[in-house]
Amino acid sequence: MGAMRSFQGFSAPCSHADQNRTQKKKKKKNPPVLDLITFFVQFHMRKVVFTACYVVSYRFNFRGFRWLQAMIFAIEEINNSSTLLPNITLGYRIFDTCNTVSKALEATLSFVAQNKIDSLNLDEFCNCTDHIPSTIAVVGAAGSAVSTAVANLLGLFYIPQISYASSSRLLSNKNQYKSFMRTIPSDEYQATAMADVIDYFQWNWVIAVASDDDYGRPGIEKFEKEMEERDICIHLNELISQYMEDHEIQALADRIENSSAKVIVVFASGPDMEPLIKEMVRRNITDRIWIASEAWASSSLIAKPEYLDVVAGTVGFALKGGHIPEFKDFLQQVQPKKNAHNEFVREFWEETFNCYLKDSRRRHQSDNGSTSFRPWCTGEEDITSVETPYLDYTHLRISYNVYVAVYSIAQALQNILTCKPGHGLFANNSCADIKKMEAWQVKRCTFSTNRDAKPV
Amino acid sequence: MGAMRSFQGFSAPCSHADQNRTQKKKKKKNPPVLDLITFFVQFHMRKVVFTACYVVSYRFNFRGFRWLQAMIFAIEEINNSSTLLPNITLGYRIFDTCNTVSKALEATLSFVAQNKIDSLNLDEFCNCTDHIPSTIAVVGAAGSAVSTAVANLLGLFYIPQISYASSSRLLSNKNQYKSFMRTIPSDEYQATAMADVIDYFQWNWVIAVASDDDYGRPGIEKFEKEMEERDICIHLNELISQYMEDHEIQALADRIENSSAKVIVVFASGPDMEPLIKEMVRRNITDRIWIASEAWASSSLIAKPEYLDVVAGTVGFALKGGHIPEFKDFLQQVQPKKNAHNEFVREFWEETFNCYLKDSRRRHQSDNGSTSFRPWCTGEEDITSVETPYLDYTHLRISYNVYVAVYSIAQALQNILTCKPGHGLFANNSCADIKKMEAWQVKRCTFSTNRDAKPV
Repeated sequence: MGAMRSFQGFSAPCSHADQNRTQKKKKKKNPPVLDLITFFVQFHMRKVVFTACYVVSYRFNFRGFRWLQAMIFAIEEINNSSTLLPNITLGYRIFDTCNTVSKALEATLSFVAQNKIDSLNLDEFCNCTDHIPSTIAVVGAAGSAVSTAVANLLGLFYIPQISYASSSRLLSNKNQYKSFMRTIPSDEYQATAMADVIDYFQWNWVIAVASDDDYGRPGIEKFEKEMEERDICIHLNELISQYMEDHEIQALADRIENSSAKVIVVFASGPDMEPLIKEMVRRNITDRIWIASEAWASSSLIAKPEYLDVVAGTVGFALKGGHIPEFKDFLQQVQPKKNAHNEFVREFWEETFNCYLKDSRRRHQSDNGSTSFRPWCTGEEDITSVETPYLDYTHLRISYNVYVAVYSIAQALQNILTCKPGHGLFANNSCADIKKMEAWQVKRCTFSTNRDAKPV
Repeated sequence: MGAMRSFQGFSAPCSHADQNRTQKKKKKKNPPVLDLITFFVQFHMRKVVFTACYVVSYRFNFRGFRWLQAMIFAIEEINNSSTLLPNITLGYRIFDTCNTVSKALEATLSFVAQNKIDSLNLDEFCNCTDHIPSTIAVVGAAGSAVSTAVANLLGLFYIPQISYASSSRLLSNKNQYKSFMRTIPSDEYQATAMADVIDYFQWNWVIAVASDDDYGRPGIEKFEKEMEERDICIHLNELISQYMEDHEIQALADRIENSSAKVIVVFASGPDMEPLIKEMVRRNITDRIWIASEAWASSSLIAKPEYLDVVAGTVGFALKGGHIPEFKDFLQQVQPKKNAHNEFVREFWEETFNCYLKDSRRRHQSDNGSTSFRPWCTGEEDITSVETPYLDYTHLRISYNVYVAVYSIAQALQNILTCKPGHGLFANNSCADIKKMEAWQVKRCTFSTNRDAKPV
C-alpha cells in the first residue's frame, strides 16, 4: 500500500500533428488528458531515436519522464559494462504512446513493418534492400489497454514485449498474447488483496468503480468475484473514462452521493479517475474511503493538494519497489545541452521551468496558438532547485520495473552471446548467432535466467 | 428469438502453414476449433483475391461460407447494375480470419501497409511506386474480439469497417474505434432483453456464463447490471473459452451441476461454448434451461443432434433477418469449375462431398499427414442432393446483414459518384473524385443515405 504525495502540476498547450484530413474534430467539453509517456525500446546497433507525441491537449508526465530516464540509464549501464554484453552496443528507439491505443499502434507499425517487410504484400510495388534492421525486443507499454493492443501486433512477429506496469489479467492469456511478458504481477492478486482489505475492516457495503478498458474491467470483475465469495455486497457498479461527458460525470457523482455506501473501490488509471475526483472535490464529498488500485494510487494527476480533502486517507496499492544505484545522480544530470538529440529532455526542461529554450520547436508551434507568454531559458537552470515528481526517487517502483525489464532483455542477449554449441535452446540444442539473431530467438531466451523478474 | 436446428457436421484435417520457426508448439489436449470464416472486402478495380486460412486443426464453416457467398453475390449484383455504380467495377479480396485475432491482423496488415506505405518508415530501405492501390473499405469481421483488434488498426488509416455480426458494446466507443460501423445492434439491447426474459418467467436464481473476450465480458456485465436493477440473483458467474483445459471444464461443469440454479444465461460464441455443452452431454445434465446469446443460438457447432438432449428448449436470440432475392439460385450454382480461382469453393466442395478434387492442394498436404482416405470427386456432383447448412436459407440473418453491409459501401460510392459540386460533404461543400478517392472519404459517406442499415 502506498501513501499519497502531493506533486506540482503544470499545464501547457502543445502542437497538433496535421492529419491532412478535412474531417471536423468532434469538439469535446472535456479534452482528453493524454499525458502518460510510455515507450518502446528497439534494440539494434548504435541507433538512438526519440519520437515525441504531439496531441491536441496534454500535460507533461514528469513521472513518465523518470521512467524513460530509467530505461536510458539501464541501457547506458549495460553499454558501459565490461561483463554484460561486452563489445556490443544496444541501440534503441523511444516512442511516446501518449497513453492512447492509436498512437501506440502507429509507432508499433512503424517498426514491425521493417521486421517483416515480406509479409506486407509490397513486392509488386516496392524494391527493398535485404538489410533492413529489425526490432528484437520492446519494453512497454505502461497502461494495460495500450499493451494489449500492441501485444496483438507484436505477437504476430514473435517480438518479445516486456511491460513494466501493465497488470491486467487479460495479458496472462498466452493464446492471445504470445510474446507478452511483464515485470509486475497480474491484477488477480491485487483484486484479492482489495477484497481482503474490505474483509479486514469488516466493511459490508461498497461501491465498485472501474476504468472502461482492459485494465479496469477485468480488475473489478475479479474483485466482484472475491466479494461474492466473501458474501460482501456491492451497491453500485460503475465504469468511468477520461472521455466521459459532463452530464455523465454529474449523474455518476449523484449516484455515489446518494449511496449509503461509504467505501469506494476504484480500479482505474489516473486520467480516467481525475474527472470523478474533480467533481467530488467540487461537491465537497469528503466522507468516503477510497480504495485505490496501483495505477491511480500514485498518479500525480490525483495526488494534488487541491484534491486532498477528498482523497486523503485513501488506501492505495503500490508495486514492489527497488533500489537503482547511482540513478539519483543520473536523474540530476539531465540537461538539454547534454541531451540535444532527445526531444523529451527539451520538453521536460521547458515544462519544468515554464520557459522556452532557444530554437524551441514548441515555441514556434505555440506562436500560432493562443498560449500564455513564457520567458526564454538557457538550458543551464538548476534542476535541483525545483520541486518536481521527476526527482522524487524516494520510492522507485515503476522506474525499478523498467530497469528490470531492460536488464531481462540484456540477459537474454547475454545468454545468446555466451551459449555453448550443444547446450543451446534451439533445434538440436544449437545456439543462435547474435549477429543474425531474430526477435523470436530473443523471446525464447528472455526471463530464462533473470531471478528478479519472472513473467506473469 | 430463434429456434435451434440440427445441422450436419463434418470434420477434416487440414494443412499447417509452415512458420519457419523452430519453436515447439505447446501441445493442447483440446485443439482450438478455428472454423469461422469471416472476411474483408477490398474495393479496387477488377481484382479478386482469396486468401484461405491454413491452421493446424479446423472444421469447415458451412454457414460462414454462405456469408462469403452473400458478399460475392452482392458485389456481382452491384457490378451488373446499370443504376448503382454504372461503369464502375468493384474489386475485392476475401481473407479468412480463422476466427483468430492474429490471423485477422496479419491479413489486415497485408493491405493497410499498401494504404499508408509512407507511414511505415521504409523510405530508407525501399523504393516504392506511387501507384499502390489502396483499400477503401472493409466488411467484417464476424466475431467482436476479432473486430475490435482489426478496428484498432483500420482506425489509424481511416478505413471504414462494417461488421455484419459483431455486437459487442465496446465497438460503439467512437473514441477508440473511429471508423467502425455495423449493420446489427449493440449487445446493450440483447443483454436487456435477456434480463426481460428472466423477469417474465419470474426466474430468480440464475447462472451467468460468458466468453472471456470482448464479446462475452461486456455482454454479461450489462446483463448483470440489468439483473441487479431487477433484484434478481446470479448464483455463479463464469468465463469460458475454447482454449480451456480439460480440468477447467470439469471444474466448471462441477460447479454448474452442484448449483441449484436451473437457468443458465450464456453470452458466448459457438466455439467457446462447445466444450461446455459437450461435457454437459457427457454428464447427461438435461434439466437446465439455457438462454443463448445470438452468437451460439444459431451456431452449427452447437445445433447438433447429439447435443439435443441438453440444448433442446434453449431460448436463443437471433438477428433480424431479411430476404435476398435470387440468392437461393446463386447458392445452388456454386461449382468448383465455375469458381476455379476461389480456393474457398474448392475447400467447400471437398468438405461437403468428403472427397478431393483433382489437383487438390489439400490432398497433397494431407498426404504428409495421417488422414483418412477420401475418394476423388469430379466437381460436377449435385449440391442439392446433400443436406448442408450452406443451403439452409430459410432464415437469412447474418447473410442478410453481410448483403446490407456491402450495399452500404456501394451506396457511399454512389453518393461520391453522383455528388454535385457545391453540395458535397467535403471542404466548402466540394465533392470527392471517385477516381482518386481515399478511404476516409468513403467513410464519411457510408451510412449517410442507406435506410436499412444505420451505424450503431
